[in-house]
Amino acid sequence: MHAFIIGIGDELTLGQTVDTNSPWLSEQLTALGIPVLGHLIVPDDRAATAAAVRQAAATTELVLVTGGLGPTQDDLTRDALADAAGVPLEERTDALAAVATWFKQHQRTMSASNRVQALCPRGADWLDNDCGTAPGLRVRIGQATVYAFPGVPREMKAMFLRHLVPTLAAQSGRVILTRTIRTFGEGESQIGERLGDLMRRGRNPVVGTTVSLGVVSVRVRSEASTLAEAEAALQATVADIQARLGNLIYGADDDTLARAVGRLMKERDMTLVTAESCTGGGVAAQITDIPGSSDWFRGGWVVYTNALKTSALGVPVKLIEKDGAVSEPVARAMATGALERGGADCALALTGVAGPDGGTADKPVGTVWIALAVPGAGGPAVTAQRVLFPGDRAAVRDRAGKTALNMLRQALLRGGGA
Amino acid sequence: MHAFIIGIGDELTLGQTVDTNSPWLSEQLTALGIPVLGHLIVPDDRAATAAAVRQAAATTELVLVTGGLGPTQDDLTRDALADAAGVPLEERTDALAAVATWFKQHQRTMSASNRVQALCPRGADWLDNDCGTAPGLRVRIGQATVYAFPGVPREMKAMFLRHLVPTLAAQSGRVILTRTIRTFGEGESQIGERLGDLMRRGRNPVVGTTVSLGVVSVRVRSEASTLAEAEAALQATVADIQARLGNLIYGADDDTLARAVGRLMKERDMTLVTAESCTGGGVAAQITDIPGSSDWFRGGWVVYTNALKTSALGVPVKLIEKDGAVSEPVARAMATGALERGGADCALALTGVAGPDGGTADKPVGTVWIALAVPGAGGPAVTAQRVLFPGDRAAVRDRAGKTALNMLRQALLRGGGA
Repeated sequence: MHAFIIGIGDELTLGQTVDTNSPWLSEQLTALGIPVLGHLIVPDDRAATAAAVRQAAATTELVLVTGGLGPTQDDLTRDALADAAGVPLEERTDALAAVATWFKQHQRTMSASNRVQALCPRGADWLDNDCGTAPGLRVRIGQATVYAFPGVPREMKAMFLRHLVPTLAAQSGRVILTRTIRTFGEGESQIGERLGDLMRRGRNPVVGTTVSLGVVSVRVRSEASTLAEAEAALQATVADIQARLGNLIYGADDDTLARAVGRLMKERDMTLVTAESCTGGGVAAQITDIPGSSDWFRGGWVVYTNALKTSALGVPVKLIEKDGAVSEPVARAMATGALERGGADCALALTGVAGPDGGTADKPVGTVWIALAVPGAGGPAVTAQRVLFPGDRAAVRDRAGKTALNMLRQALLRGGGA
Repeated sequence: MHAFIIGIGDELTLGQTVDTNSPWLSEQLTALGIPVLGHLIVPDDRAATAAAVRQAAATTELVLVTGGLGPTQDDLTRDALADAAGVPLEERTDALAAVATWFKQHQRTMSASNRVQALCPRGADWLDNDCGTAPGLRVRIGQATVYAFPGVPREMKAMFLRHLVPTLAAQSGRVILTRTIRTFGEGESQIGERLGDLMRRGRNPVVGTTVSLGVVSVRVRSEASTLAEAEAALQATVADIQARLGNLIYGADDDTLARAVGRLMKERDMTLVTAESCTGGGVAAQITDIPGSSDWFRGGWVVYTNALKTSALGVPVKLIEKDGAVSEPVARAMATGALERGGADCALALTGVAGPDGGTADKPVGTVWIALAVPGAGGPAVTAQRVLFPGDRAAVRDRAGKTALNMLRQALLRGGGA
């Protein structure tokens, strides 16, 4: 069995609202072993909706429609389903009673317009909605079953889980498991080359890559007739990917570089401080996004002016005058200054040209010096790295923060401070 | 002219990623007077993509495709466009040179797999991408023009604005102008009451409200046959809204509270420092997101531990022991400590319980003390406010930062420090 999802609403085709219903339904269907062939978004238009439903029903066995079941004039899904099925609409007294009961239970007055919500295409089933006024619909069109749910995510989700999941779980003979492995430090093409034949088309589990804000993600999708088989194949492929990518991998699914650093810091019982210029607090903010980060993060300095670099972190004025604020000596002095003042084991310091202004031939926009201090044999061991990031101010700041966190992660994995 | 948008990617049909490209493109096209007939999402599948492009090209004049232009084996948009147009793929030496130049400029090594990014369907135009490695494509299929852009939102947006907008604006005969007015400090229903009859259905310009993360936005959409008419009607409605909402308005469109604060600080030639505990650098990060913020932002402290509150900002140990770290005296001491050490005119300090742990009956999760120091007649004037924010850790941190920036904004508007 395959599925196709249709979302209805002018707010969607106008771009005023982002469709989150289709991704949610896709995740649910995928977990139930039902591949989703696509999502289609159409406006509040009877003919366009009817045509979309008719075409989807001709090519797939399960069609899910969200939106357009409300009581107003622009809610046309009922009419469109009747058109697609080639049947008239009829008022169903049991559906009308259900709508009336909802209003009574919620102590609201049912207006005349709500009466249209009890209309069903002839031969269709209506689906009870205990979160709102709009009943859902189930219609057979040819070989396909078409379900229509309200567009309000809370109502749609409740109805999907109640009316569809039990049936689908019983029918589906296939299981699909997915895992997303997150990497940082190499480009998508380099990761693709390391993965090699794992990415060949037609392989099961399927392996694919995507890149977003410097993070290259490896998606694995395992399909089998039993959960045990799907799980075993997924694990084998994930193990193969781990062997090929090693420490480039920092986590899976919703993991972040800051979380990966946090796990290592906690394991090693170490603490961190930050000293930021170009990222302006962004690294500290990412770290403190994590619940419990106070176990290993002591705090940080945002030293945006040269004067504050000196007064708050003790960066010598003559270093700044001689080498400039964006330089290896200043980055190192920021790291050691923060380390001493923060009483922490590790420090990360960033100073760079985020742009759009401030670039020079020598230090173009995107130039960032990152210094890292970790415990060494005879005191803090400080390393520094110069990086040139592409993109605009936001991209440079984002990539600089991730690169700094990744430098710390790699140092901790190599046993820095052990 | 009408448009249809196709998004490509397994991550989309699996529901792992929410498609934000299509809504963004829809907003842009709507503003240009080009109605969008629908969005279709298909997996990384050559045949499905080719079929989708072929069908869209048969029914509309403008087809926009996003995704699948990367260098890996699951990037099949080039092949699918060639299939849909019924032509072979060819390597274009000029496109290859552009990809090679990008790698050279960014001091990275071009791998063999990137060579496929220079393939174009015969007769197609390739579109320069100055934000990444993937060139876009423009292909004629029957009466339709099909544009393919990379799926990375930043690259897609830059290429759309550069390669499409100038052409489309010249072709369209209708004008739709939109403006979004941003407010902070009151709820959506209160704003709705102030707007009253401006929100009635059928009015042109249309006025509506939405709320996201504490910001209530008032959207205005003006439609006319000429730019002058649309502009005049838009301006009149915006002026009316401004009269009704006054200082609740901090800006328009992509404006942020931090930008609004920045404009006022610059006008008044004043400087700011921050002292953050619960927001952990988030306020400084929002401020330094803004190009040129170094004109008025000197820097900040992230004092996550009590020890650092004392050592870095001079908050007396006995205050923390007596009143707790989340208290009015500590917030005030953080603000004055930062003001003195940073040599700035104004200071913002935040200390609170972001959660999920750390709440007590007295100070539940969401409790935040915000202190603000601005210049007064006889030295710094410090005010403080206790706020209780609903929601999870991310919501509390976000709302606390916005409330602090809004306190500063209101103080500056009242003439604080004048």
